[in-house]
Amino acid sequence: MANGRIEGVLRHADSTHQAALERWFALLRIPSVSAQPAHAADCAAAAEWVRAELAELGFEAALHATPGQPCVLAHHPGPGGNAPHLLYYGHYDVQPPEPLELWTTPPFEPTRTQGPHGERVVARGAVDDKGQVCTWLAAFRAWHAVTGGLPARVTVLVEGEEEVGSPNLEPFLLTQRAALAADAAVISDTNMWDIHTPAITTRLRGLVYVELTLRAATRDLHSGLYGGSALNALNLLTRILGDLHDTQGRVRLAGFYDRVRPVPPEQAASWGALGFDEREFLGQIGLLQPAGEAGLPALERLWARPTADINGLWGGYTGPGAKTVIPGEARAKLSFRLVPDQDPAAVLASFRRFVAERLPPGIEAAYEVFGQSPGIEVPTHSPLIAAARAALAEEYGREPVFVGSGGSIPVVESFKRVLGLDTLLMGFGLDDDQVHSPNEKFDLACFTHGLRAHIRLLGHLGPG
Amino acid sequence: MANGRIEGVLRHADSTHQAALERWFALLRIPSVSAQPAHAADCAAAAEWVRAELAELGFEAALHATPGQPCVLAHHPGPGGNAPHLLYYGHYDVQPPEPLELWTTPPFEPTRTQGPHGERVVARGAVDDKGQVCTWLAAFRAWHAVTGGLPARVTVLVEGEEEVGSPNLEPFLLTQRAALAADAAVISDTNMWDIHTPAITTRLRGLVYVELTLRAATRDLHSGLYGGSALNALNLLTRILGDLHDTQGRVRLAGFYDRVRPVPPEQAASWGALGFDEREFLGQIGLLQPAGEAGLPALERLWARPTADINGLWGGYTGPGAKTVIPGEARAKLSFRLVPDQDPAAVLASFRRFVAERLPPGIEAAYEVFGQSPGIEVPTHSPLIAAARAALAEEYGREPVFVGSGGSIPVVESFKRVLGLDTLLMGFGLDDDQVHSPNEKFDLACFTHGLRAHIRLLGHLGPG
Repeated sequence: MANGRIEGVLRHADSTHQAALERWFALLRIPSVSAQPAHAADCAAAAEWVRAELAELGFEAALHATPGQPCVLAHHPGPGGNAPHLLYYGHYDVQPPEPLELWTTPPFEPTRTQGPHGERVVARGAVDDKGQVCTWLAAFRAWHAVTGGLPARVTVLVEGEEEVGSPNLEPFLLTQRAALAADAAVISDTNMWDIHTPAITTRLRGLVYVELTLRAATRDLHSGLYGGSALNALNLLTRILGDLHDTQGRVRLAGFYDRVRPVPPEQAASWGALGFDEREFLGQIGLLQPAGEAGLPALERLWARPTADINGLWGGYTGPGAKTVIPGEARAKLSFRLVPDQDPAAVLASFRRFVAERLPPGIEAAYEVFGQSPGIEVPTHSPLIAAARAALAEEYGREPVFVGSGGSIPVVESFKRVLGLDTLLMGFGLDDDQVHSPNEKFDLACFTHGLRAHIRLLGHLGPG
Repeated sequence: MANGRIEGVLRHADSTHQAALERWFALLRIPSVSAQPAHAADCAAAAEWVRAELAELGFEAALHATPGQPCVLAHHPGPGGNAPHLLYYGHYDVQPPEPLELWTTPPFEPTRTQGPHGERVVARGAVDDKGQVCTWLAAFRAWHAVTGGLPARVTVLVEGEEEVGSPNLEPFLLTQRAALAADAAVISDTNMWDIHTPAITTRLRGLVYVELTLRAATRDLHSGLYGGSALNALNLLTRILGDLHDTQGRVRLAGFYDRVRPVPPEQAASWGALGFDEREFLGQIGLLQPAGEAGLPALERLWARPTADINGLWGGYTGPGAKTVIPGEARAKLSFRLVPDQDPAAVLASFRRFVAERLPPGIEAAYEVFGQSPGIEVPTHSPLIAAARAALAEEYGREPVFVGSGGSIPVVESFKRVLGLDTLLMGFGLDDDQVHSPNEKFDLACFTHGLRAHIRLLGHLGPG
C-alpha cells in the first residue's frame, strides 16, 4: 500500500478542487435528456465532453454510435505488470426536468446553495449520475497530474441511455466483450447511508417498465349522449389498475411473489441495526405513514420486496375547466421493482394476463416495454470490496455499511451475465438528493469525499 | 292558422338558402371556446355576431357583460295583441376542438362533405349549438323578410358559457327576470330520433362535474428509492376511482339511487316501441357490447339512470419513454349524470365522503366543482308542445316522438325554477353528429328541415 503516494494525490486534489467543480458544472450545463428526442444533440455533446475529458487524462477514448445515444469507451494501460484491471461505468444522460415550474433554479444551470451539511449544487443530474461520474473522473485527473498515470489498468464505459432503460447497452456489451474485459467493475450511482456513513450497496432491485394503452370507442364521446351505454376507457383503466394491490398492499399479479426469497435472519438483523427511521424518511416528503406491504420492516420493503407503481397515467380532457367526454383511449406507464430470482419476463406476462382477464370483449390493450431487468445481489468477499472498505474507512473515519437499494442498475446484472464481472457499488448520494425530481442536488461534501475515496481506492489497488 | 302565410315564408327561406348557410358558416369560423382563456376575444366576437344578426331582424339587441363570457339579450315585439311570448335560448360557445390531430378538416373552417344522407357540414359547433341556433335565426329572418316582423313576441337569450357549466347564467337570470318574462321557452340543442323522425325531448339528465386533486408526497419521487414505502398518488387515485362501480355497473356512492324513480310502465313501453338498436349505436363507435348497469334496457340506461364517468385523469410522467417517478399528485375530472329527484349537492357530498373514506391519513383531497344541475322532465300537454307537434308533423310527414336525452341542459331547470317557464326542446341533431368530438358535423338536411320547422312553429303560434 503506497499511502505516501495516496496522500500526495489527495493533497493535489484538494488544491485543484475549484477546477474539478468547474468541470462538473460544465457537464451539468448540457441538457442531455435521453427520453426526449429534441435533446439528441445535447446527449451527443455530453458524450463528447466525457470522451475529451478522458483523452486529456491519458486514455485512448472514442465515441461509439448506437441506434440511440452514443457510448464513450476508453482505455488506460495503468502501470503495467499485474496491476488489477477495473471497468468504470457511468451514464451521462439525465431524467427529464419536468415539471419545470417546481424548480427554484434553472435545471441546467448548476447553482450553489446552502443546506444543512454546507454547500450543495442544484441541477438535473447533479448527483444522478454526472456528479458521481465526476468524482472518479476527478480522481483519475489527480493521479494523472501527480504520477503521470493511474495505479490500475482502467477501462471506462459511459453510456447515454440509462434513464430510458439502456435499450442499446446489452448489444454494445456483446459486440465489445473483448474491449470491456476487466477483473471487476466499479459504479458510483448509489447512496451513502447518511452524510457521515459511507455505504457499499450489495442488493439492487430489478425493473419492468411498461406502457399500457386501452382502446375502447374509436373516438371521445359526449358523456351525456353515451353515458350508461358506452364503455369509458378511463373508468376501465382505473378499475383494472385500482385492482393491482390487495388491502394489505401486496401486488395481486398471479405468481408475483412465488420466487421472492425471505431476507436471511442475519441480513435482517444487520439492516435492523442501521436504525432506519421511516417516519423521518417519509416526513421529509410530507407523508405521515408508510405505504407498501403491511407488517414488514421498512428496509425490507424498500430493498428486498417487489413493488408495482403507476408512474404516469393520462386520458380524456386534461385542460382547464370542464369537458364532458367519455374518453375512447387511456394510457398508463407502470413499473415493477423486482428482487433476485423474480423473472422480469414472467412478471410482464403475468401483468398482461391480469389486464386481459379484466378486459370486456372488443376492448384492445397494447403494450410498449421500456425496460426489463432482474434484481441482483453482489458477493461481499472480494479483493475489490476489501479495498473499497479500506478506502472508505480511511476517508470517513468509520467503517462503511453494507446496504441494499430499492433502485435498479440493470447494467450490474448485464456485467455479470455478459462479461462475467462482479461490481463494486460505491456511491456518494444522499436520500434527500431529489433524484428524478425537481431541484435535484448533490452536497459538496459528498462530491469531495467521493473523489477522495476514489483516489484512495485506486491507491489501494495499485502496486505497493 | 295562417297556412298560406307559412307557405310564403317557407318559399322565401328556400330561395335564400345559400345566404342562410353563409351566415351559419361565418359564426362557425369564430373559435369561441369558452373553456380556454385564450379564446375570450373569440367568444366576445361570436356574441357580437349574434347581437348584430338579431339587430338586423328588428330586435332590440344588446350584449350584457358577465364575470365570464357576455350574454346576448334581444327583444322583438311581435305582432302585438295577445300573441304568445316565447323565450328562445341558445349558446354561441363551443367545446375545445382537441385532440386536433383527429380532425380531418380544420375545426373552425366549416367544410361541406358527403355523408349517407347527402351533404353535411363539418366544424366544431356545426350542430352544438351554433347550427341549431342558426335554424331559428334563419326562421326569424324569413318571417322578417316576408312579413316585416314576427308572428309571435320573441325574447332571445344566447349565452357563451354553456360548455363550461354556465357558471354565470343563473345570476343573470335572477337580475334580468323582468326582461326574460315569457310564456314558454324554446331550445334547439337536442336530437331527432333519426334522420326521418322528428323528436321532442321531454327528459334531460342533470350533471355534477367535479375535479378531484389528490396530494400525497410534496414532490415526485424516484420509484426505486421510495417504492414500497411512499404512497403513490396515482396508485391511490386509481384505487379510489376504480371502486366507483360495482361488478353490475352500479355506482357505489352511498344513497346514489335512493331517489331514482323507476320508469313508468307506459313510458318504458313507448321507449321500447322505438326499436332502438344498441348494438348498431355502439357499433358505429367501435364497441361490441354495452357498459352501464346490467339488466336494464338501453334507453332506460341512457335516459333514466344516473351514471359516473371519468372525463379526464392525469398524473406523473406522461411524455415519451420511461420515467420512474412516484407521482406526488394526481388529478381527475368526473361527471355524474343525474335523473329527476336526485339532488346534485347530495351526490357531490356523497362523492366527497366516498373519497374521504378511502384516503390514508395525511393525504389531501381537493375539489373544484364546475357544474351542478338536477335532471328534469317537461310536461307534454301544453299549447306550445301542441304547436311543435303540428309543425314537425307537417314538415316531416310523420308524427314526432317523445324521447329522453342523456345529456344535460341545465338552463331548462333554471328557466323553470327562476322564471317559471316550461321549455320546448325541439332539436335537429343526429346521434352520429360527433358532438364534443373531432369532426363534429350537422347534416344539411337537418339544418334545412330545422329552419323550416321553426318557420312553421312560429306560424302556428301567431295570429290566424
